[in-house]
Amino acid sequence: MLITPGKLLATINSPEDLRKLDSSQLPQVCNELRQFIIDNVSVYGGHFGASLGVVELSVALHYVFNTPDDQLVWDVGHQAYGHKILTGRRDEFHSNRVYGGLSGFPKRKESIYDAFGVGHSSTSISSALGMAVASALEKNFERQHIAIIGDGAMTAGLAFEGMNHAGATDSNLLIILNDNCMAIDPNVGALKEYLTDITTSQTYNKFKDEVWNLLGKMSNFGKSAQEIVSKVETAMKTAILRQSNLFESLGLRYFGPIDGNDISHLTEVLKDLKNIPGPKLLHCLTVKGKGYGPAEKDQTKWHAPGVFDKITGEIKKKVYNTPQAPKYQDVFGHTIVELAKENPKIVGITPAMPSGSSLNIMMETIPERAFDVGIAEQHAVTFSAGMATRGDIVFCNIYSTFMQRAYDQVVHDVCIQELPVIFCLDRAGLVGADGPTHHGVYDIAFMRCIPNMVVASPMNEQELRNMMFTAQLESFQSGKNAFTIRYPRGNGVMPDWKTPFEEIQIGKGRKIKDGTGLAILSFGPLGNFALQACEELEKHGIDAGLFDMRFAKPLDEAMLHEIFLSYERVMTLEDGCLQGGFGSAVLEFMIDNGYTNQVKRLGIPDSIVEHGEPSELYKECGIDTTGIVSASLEFVTRQSKTVLAIH
Amino acid sequence: MLITPGKLLATINSPEDLRKLDSSQLPQVCNELRQFIIDNVSVYGGHFGASLGVVELSVALHYVFNTPDDQLVWDVGHQAYGHKILTGRRDEFHSNRVYGGLSGFPKRKESIYDAFGVGHSSTSISSALGMAVASALEKNFERQHIAIIGDGAMTAGLAFEGMNHAGATDSNLLIILNDNCMAIDPNVGALKEYLTDITTSQTYNKFKDEVWNLLGKMSNFGKSAQEIVSKVETAMKTAILRQSNLFESLGLRYFGPIDGNDISHLTEVLKDLKNIPGPKLLHCLTVKGKGYGPAEKDQTKWHAPGVFDKITGEIKKKVYNTPQAPKYQDVFGHTIVELAKENPKIVGITPAMPSGSSLNIMMETIPERAFDVGIAEQHAVTFSAGMATRGDIVFCNIYSTFMQRAYDQVVHDVCIQELPVIFCLDRAGLVGADGPTHHGVYDIAFMRCIPNMVVASPMNEQELRNMMFTAQLESFQSGKNAFTIRYPRGNGVMPDWKTPFEEIQIGKGRKIKDGTGLAILSFGPLGNFALQACEELEKHGIDAGLFDMRFAKPLDEAMLHEIFLSYERVMTLEDGCLQGGFGSAVLEFMIDNGYTNQVKRLGIPDSIVEHGEPSELYKECGIDTTGIVSASLEFVTRQSKTVLAIH
Repeated sequence: MLITPGKLLATINSPEDLRKLDSSQLPQVCNELRQFIIDNVSVYGGHFGASLGVVELSVALHYVFNTPDDQLVWDVGHQAYGHKILTGRRDEFHSNRVYGGLSGFPKRKESIYDAFGVGHSSTSISSALGMAVASALEKNFERQHIAIIGDGAMTAGLAFEGMNHAGATDSNLLIILNDNCMAIDPNVGALKEYLTDITTSQTYNKFKDEVWNLLGKMSNFGKSAQEIVSKVETAMKTAILRQSNLFESLGLRYFGPIDGNDISHLTEVLKDLKNIPGPKLLHCLTVKGKGYGPAEKDQTKWHAPGVFDKITGEIKKKVYNTPQAPKYQDVFGHTIVELAKENPKIVGITPAMPSGSSLNIMMETIPERAFDVGIAEQHAVTFSAGMATRGDIVFCNIYSTFMQRAYDQVVHDVCIQELPVIFCLDRAGLVGADGPTHHGVYDIAFMRCIPNMVVASPMNEQELRNMMFTAQLESFQSGKNAFTIRYPRGNGVMPDWKTPFEEIQIGKGRKIKDGTGLAILSFGPLGNFALQACEELEKHGIDAGLFDMRFAKPLDEAMLHEIFLSYERVMTLEDGCLQGGFGSAVLEFMIDNGYTNQVKRLGIPDSIVEHGEPSELYKECGIDTTGIVSASLEFVTRQSKTVLAIH
Repeated sequence: MLITPGKLLATINSPEDLRKLDSSQLPQVCNELRQFIIDNVSVYGGHFGASLGVVELSVALHYVFNTPDDQLVWDVGHQAYGHKILTGRRDEFHSNRVYGGLSGFPKRKESIYDAFGVGHSSTSISSALGMAVASALEKNFERQHIAIIGDGAMTAGLAFEGMNHAGATDSNLLIILNDNCMAIDPNVGALKEYLTDITTSQTYNKFKDEVWNLLGKMSNFGKSAQEIVSKVETAMKTAILRQSNLFESLGLRYFGPIDGNDISHLTEVLKDLKNIPGPKLLHCLTVKGKGYGPAEKDQTKWHAPGVFDKITGEIKKKVYNTPQAPKYQDVFGHTIVELAKENPKIVGITPAMPSGSSLNIMMETIPERAFDVGIAEQHAVTFSAGMATRGDIVFCNIYSTFMQRAYDQVVHDVCIQELPVIFCLDRAGLVGADGPTHHGVYDIAFMRCIPNMVVASPMNEQELRNMMFTAQLESFQSGKNAFTIRYPRGNGVMPDWKTPFEEIQIGKGRKIKDGTGLAILSFGPLGNFALQACEELEKHGIDAGLFDMRFAKPLDEAMLHEIFLSYERVMTLEDGCLQGGFGSAVLEFMIDNGYTNQVKRLGIPDSIVEHGEPSELYKECGIDTTGIVSASLEFVTRQSKTVLAIH
């Protein structure tokens, strides 16, 4: 079902077309663009509230600026649907986030209008500044460089680092602060409070009232006194709203706040700003979900609602006849609450993903021990380390891909100091529609090379629960190792998941079935595909052994010795990168111990895996059931190539 | 030679002793402490200027606060010499930075007074906040938590993330901003300019003058008007220096600036602050190198001067009779200038390490294309990516250990987008006296698992030059791969280093010598030890082949096929972690290609390597010449353990 665009929108095949319109037509463009997004997302799913909030910004920016020569850098990028539709991708937009279709984020390969690829937050200021400095080196002082960044993204350290550099340059950089008080969940932190404060002008108003009361008493001194009073007011306003504003402190000229959903005012202001040189910030207030009632009301739910009925606002959930396995996220959320109720030293930490990680379950139940620190992964980890020094048992929940942001903190603040922080790496492996920026595929490699670190992954809900149980016991008892538990996005395999806790010996794998000739060693949830593959292989007369290794570090060396002594061929399976991952750990064991078995490693190849349904991506990487079966069939017939002259 | 402490300092074996003194004795303590540091560093070397600058702070903090129950968190930590001397480590202080001796940084294992281990910058606010929140959970509202952070460290995003969280809490946290306008090199950026601004009170003064002029005109309205004018002034002062200060904007009560080298005032202010609850910041102005003339004058040179004559201020350089090989750093610095002179698209970027990396050579020669972005590794990389989108050829120079701070930016902003940024990872491998926080040993593992990334390491100066030459050619021509060149701290091996540029085929190794039975495959500078080891091995009748592989990614597969077909035993050698490093890459190749040779991997083991002379650390890890020889002797006699029942 193709969505029909409105009459005006149908004529806009590029920003050139948009710029031919009279400014009086822009409200109509905004209406049609908003409707087109609603129509599309209601049918095809995707991110929603953020793009609705910046419809006017998207139209105004392309109307006022000379894109693509002027560089638009959208932060995070899930709000760039309007931008995509206006830049020649309207008729493909139904393929958004679909395998082989458009990316859900700006992407340089997709369009010349996408100046910078994105997915993680807070990169826009630094990258746009890089472009601005490059333009200046080319002696191009006309080109405009615009970073559009949300107030949530502004809390990340990278954004601050970018401002600190930008404010000390004379770069042609415009930062648009898209302030809607939200990340995916409501934004938190001092900056958010400050923005609310300057928006409602409390500081200024409070000060003004106070001084006004004093000055008011001078009214009886006549007209000349009143004039002076008025001049004093103006001076104060300048001082407080300009020189002393946080952004002005950082060398950025501050403008606003203005209503970012008012297209005519926005267009005017942007035109004015075009002529003001140097680094500057425009503070726009927008409403996430703007123009669609239900989305304005519950902004977290409507961040990415899935398919919905656009008339009733009813989000369409799949209906199942049998009990379904829960999301790993919910298993995490309920389990940490269970554990924390038993042990008052347990705390939970998330950087801005309470609903995504399901830590919100703990935030509701035990709010004093559950912390949302905002989009601030580095801080989340070092803050965790600080708590751990005081004996707290910290579950720090970070998406695998976002953990890349806090790598140094894991090495330097946690592992070198032997602090027993527990890292729950959510959305490990291939995440699906969010694509390459969000796949969590490097974590096994980058975590297992750090000393004093355990790296585990559960094959099912019960194992996740038991790993969490074990990790907090270990944290409490030995207090020496950090403990990583990586698990995927989405549903597990055990409808009846709430099993009693059982301690797992650290570094102990689990034999699922014996076999002959071929052993499959799986790490994490792909073990379920391996189990199905074993059944398939039996039909081909192959009796594969299957081992759920559970730990990439430390490895179960006893089990591995047994395997390498009993099976000629060993296959490893992981939803992580093949370079340096779990399979490589097994190779290291094998070679260090002088074994010469044949090994085949299955995992994510050394290239960027694009977006699509997880099942499509697993297939592409050859790590679904079919892939495992065909790799096994090929493997068991493979001959050793080695012909050592000196043998 | 043991340094004799002054009379008072000799009696201070713990902060308890210090707290018994009368406050009138503190200036004397400061003098003696300063002298003790000068005496020690002049003889034994180490960091210098930073500790001299905080002598008064160190004394005042331990005098006023109840350490170790109150938690002192020193940021970066190279300024904590005074703290160490006052906390029971005076008589061991001569062992500072020596193998087996005291660490040059705070370290939890070393002392109960070291609340948080450190080495990298900007972790203090987050960690101290973690402790403060933990104390509050324990219902301990008495305990004080103090982060002492420099203005240089304040520019890193992590510090901002910490403040953003802290300012929204009611934690018992005191941040002491130790403002000396310096990192190792002069501090840069908008924040630094702001701090200078509020220090010299320009904003307030300018505003005050302006308003005062206006209000002055009211003097003729009599005494009651004057009183009102005075109240207005007070209100303005509050508004401008409090609510509108950058730190107040972030929810931190701001105090200062005060003279951080004035012990009596400092002590009084700290006492007052003890009684003010909630998160707060004290802005202290200090002088780096305070009390030692030459160090005050040239603060960068005296950051860590090495051994010097304390009377004349002459820094003692080793004298050599023969020409010495240059530092790799200087080879980098001169080479980038040579290349940049030929190609106007080449730019150089450093996060706050111009003198350490020798990018200062380019900053002096071609200042418009060399950028010091401050302590901001994340920004350095994303800024580089932004410039690369505009066709610039970016050499982004970051110490290997600090690159851990920008890991996500390498993955997400550079490699996923196929931007050809060139990363020069300085101080890769074991760095020596700075110890575990500074060793650059994980980079091979964490870089080679990223797609679209080349990982190279030179064995000597000529190779470094040729790799830089090749990288910029590649960046210019293909523009698809990022290019990592990792090289060690310190001197190379070629006194006659300025060789003509020669392109290296990417992924092409270099055979140094043929051999029989055993092949040694080295990656990077350890190849020089391997060369010596080969000579030694000849004496034992072993004719080892030696291959300088140059690339960990892509591997030279043609060369590897040759090696695995011709040599029964293969030894890999790297100054990086054994988990997932270069050796593992070789294993992956071998197993993927069905070879069954014996392999022995030498490298950094899976544990924290402490500080010491590089030679001592190489020895400990068994990767110096002697280690390679003995590993080889053991290896060539090793029997395969494999006894496959089914063979």
